[in-house]
Amino acid sequence: MLLAGAGAAMTMVVATLIERKRNGGALAPAEWRELITAYTADQVPDYQMSALLMAIYFRGLSPEELAALTDAMLESGDRLDLGRRTVPAVDKHSTGGVGDKTSLLLAPMLAACGLMVPMMSGRGLGHTGGTLDKLESIPGFRTDLRLREAEDQVRRIGCALIGQTPEIAPADKRLYALRDVTATVESIPLIAASIMSKKLAEGVDGLVLDVKTGSGAFLPDPEMARTLAETMIGLGEARGCRTVALLTAMDRPLGRAAGNALEVEEAIEGLQGRGPDDLMELTYALGAEMLLVAGAAADRRDAQRKLGHVIESGAALDRLRAIIEAQGGNPAVVDDPGALPQAPVERIWEAPVAGIVSRVEPRRIGRAIMALGGGRMKVDDAIDPAVGFVITARPGDLVARGQPLATIHARDDSGARAAAQALAEAIVIGEPAAPLPLISHRITRDGVEPL
Amino acid sequence: MLLAGAGAAMTMVVATLIERKRNGGALAPAEWRELITAYTADQVPDYQMSALLMAIYFRGLSPEELAALTDAMLESGDRLDLGRRTVPAVDKHSTGGVGDKTSLLLAPMLAACGLMVPMMSGRGLGHTGGTLDKLESIPGFRTDLRLREAEDQVRRIGCALIGQTPEIAPADKRLYALRDVTATVESIPLIAASIMSKKLAEGVDGLVLDVKTGSGAFLPDPEMARTLAETMIGLGEARGCRTVALLTAMDRPLGRAAGNALEVEEAIEGLQGRGPDDLMELTYALGAEMLLVAGAAADRRDAQRKLGHVIESGAALDRLRAIIEAQGGNPAVVDDPGALPQAPVERIWEAPVAGIVSRVEPRRIGRAIMALGGGRMKVDDAIDPAVGFVITARPGDLVARGQPLATIHARDDSGARAAAQALAEAIVIGEPAAPLPLISHRITRDGVEPL
Repeated sequence: MLLAGAGAAMTMVVATLIERKRNGGALAPAEWRELITAYTADQVPDYQMSALLMAIYFRGLSPEELAALTDAMLESGDRLDLGRRTVPAVDKHSTGGVGDKTSLLLAPMLAACGLMVPMMSGRGLGHTGGTLDKLESIPGFRTDLRLREAEDQVRRIGCALIGQTPEIAPADKRLYALRDVTATVESIPLIAASIMSKKLAEGVDGLVLDVKTGSGAFLPDPEMARTLAETMIGLGEARGCRTVALLTAMDRPLGRAAGNALEVEEAIEGLQGRGPDDLMELTYALGAEMLLVAGAAADRRDAQRKLGHVIESGAALDRLRAIIEAQGGNPAVVDDPGALPQAPVERIWEAPVAGIVSRVEPRRIGRAIMALGGGRMKVDDAIDPAVGFVITARPGDLVARGQPLATIHARDDSGARAAAQALAEAIVIGEPAAPLPLISHRITRDGVEPL
Repeated sequence: MLLAGAGAAMTMVVATLIERKRNGGALAPAEWRELITAYTADQVPDYQMSALLMAIYFRGLSPEELAALTDAMLESGDRLDLGRRTVPAVDKHSTGGVGDKTSLLLAPMLAACGLMVPMMSGRGLGHTGGTLDKLESIPGFRTDLRLREAEDQVRRIGCALIGQTPEIAPADKRLYALRDVTATVESIPLIAASIMSKKLAEGVDGLVLDVKTGSGAFLPDPEMARTLAETMIGLGEARGCRTVALLTAMDRPLGRAAGNALEVEEAIEGLQGRGPDDLMELTYALGAEMLLVAGAAADRRDAQRKLGHVIESGAALDRLRAIIEAQGGNPAVVDDPGALPQAPVERIWEAPVAGIVSRVEPRRIGRAIMALGGGRMKVDDAIDPAVGFVITARPGDLVARGQPLATIHARDDSGARAAAQALAEAIVIGEPAAPLPLISHRITRDGVEPL
């Protein structure tokens, strides 16, 4: 043990590790392993870890260090055990955005295609939404399954939609909470290690990453987004998990609905074959990659055909119904959107001038949802699942003055008024529109392919 | 209050301050003041402060931020109140080295010249010695005076030699302990704020800084040493404290003795007019600057004359006797070095080859003292006051094979053997010697003057 010894001696050893990282050096794999083990066992104080995290923010991690840190975080907990299985397991991860409900479609679709989808998601934070919050807008739906429950459900019905269980990567859970309050979230190696330690704990054979770029993305800069994708692909592939990334647009919301229950409703429409074009295009593209990394489709054309089939046959919608039922939710929401929480105030928002819609700013929309009570600043804030927007205007649309462009769903009149003001800032009319391509690049272990 | 509100709200505000500093921005003076106030009141957790300290390590502080942080640390505690006085108060600070016992000479010398010297010192840490440890090798000597005791003693006999009292800059005390275990010590603005918040709390009119350069210095790089000096001068002068710095050599030990009781003995010899040349030259140079910043000498020549007088008359030695008596120590050590702790094992160390002494490496000597038990790795380590070295060899000396170059003072034979091995590494014979000039530059608010 490098970190053996009583408190004071270990404190000094950890200080020398921090100093080495601060000076641009590297920690050895055994040092990462023992440091994370000791931290998880409460033998390294948060104040040393946060100084190290800030040093990592400035100095980065070598590929060897990143691998060691990720493994140490993964091994700090348990893994999903899907048993001896004849079908591959697969998952998808998105770096987060506004209106992104693809997980709600893909999990039942891929399960209906015969794959196992042990999907562990997060909560919304800041301007971005979170799959767990959306699911919890379904009355009764439980996302806090324990590891063994989730395993059972995946074996039974092919899919579970859960949060990070206490058994999975506890070191990541503690580090994430610490990063959140010490301004050390925005570090590519720390983001990659956090995501991949959890995804690898799911025990999946394949993983598809939806890495957002553009003004509403967590990392707006496309170069950083690409670096993050390549970093995560390297980690996954080195551990026997086929990993592919798509770089996709988050310079406008995805689909029309933004807000928890509203997005569930739109996802159900998508599974019924009547989702918005951009949402369905991205869902099919990600779904095809999931089938391909799982080796469950001959080629992209075959993959698209299989995905189309589970939608048209109703098999995907049935699978969503089964998942909701298994996790304690009211499956009636699948056939009756009125069973989802409804906001008491609904207001149509109309174009104030005629012209071309140049921008629909996702950050502004996301912050407006928070102001309506539908998002959170801190992980333990309560949220109102019913509020949000349905925005039909897309960048490039030609609109007339007074044309309805959005519906506001609010708790009360004053919330609706503030939301209308936010829309007036978010929806820019009159300048030329230059939206990003919905899917710009495909990245694999072999390189970057423009699409 | 910017930081008003309950725990969670303040946590988020502090996170945005850390983020701003991390991104290269500046905190406003009111933000520094409230942050330090809240930290001192245990309302900001150490893990946020350590992340901020690491961000400061990488991003630095603007002059306005540094001033605000220093003032906030100063105002976190009390100040020495020397009453209505007709004589100026003055102090000296050294950035630390091996064999540097100038404080033990200067405090009684300047007090004997009629000035007030409220001298607050530190403990040795790492390879450098500390004035408090040296003083505590005098049997009975107390350095842990409370603020009011120290004030009384300065008013009575012109001088007190104490550690940082609990009343002085408590924010600095906590921040220093945190920096020590989070690898955030080596930051020029943090060093400057820490030193100056304490020195300004002494309420002195003038301050002389002995900033060491060379391989044994805390900041070996002369450019960094100069920047630190200029930074501290700026802080002092802006607060009405005349501040001057000398850049001095720490590429070899100062004087001959290195080790706590051995250095007290050499300081007493210095006050008796028979100290080693380099120690006396630096002591006179620093003492002259102290008289000049206090306005207590017409010019450097007058200052040197006054210093010479208090040595020759025995007034300085008498003043040391009075200080020791006032602080509970045995004043017999002044006349009888045998009253100081004596190491049981003494060994002469001889030149293994003939040639020119090219280097006497202070870091190696300092670490050897630690290995003998005379230094500390952590602030609460106990030390053996008697051990150490008396090294007569100086860089540039021509020595014969077998010539005695040093005496080892050790607890036992095995310690003496290890110390002999350390000397064989520290004292390099045979390459050309290129020692740094003892005093290379004088720095004032008006600029840098080569000497």
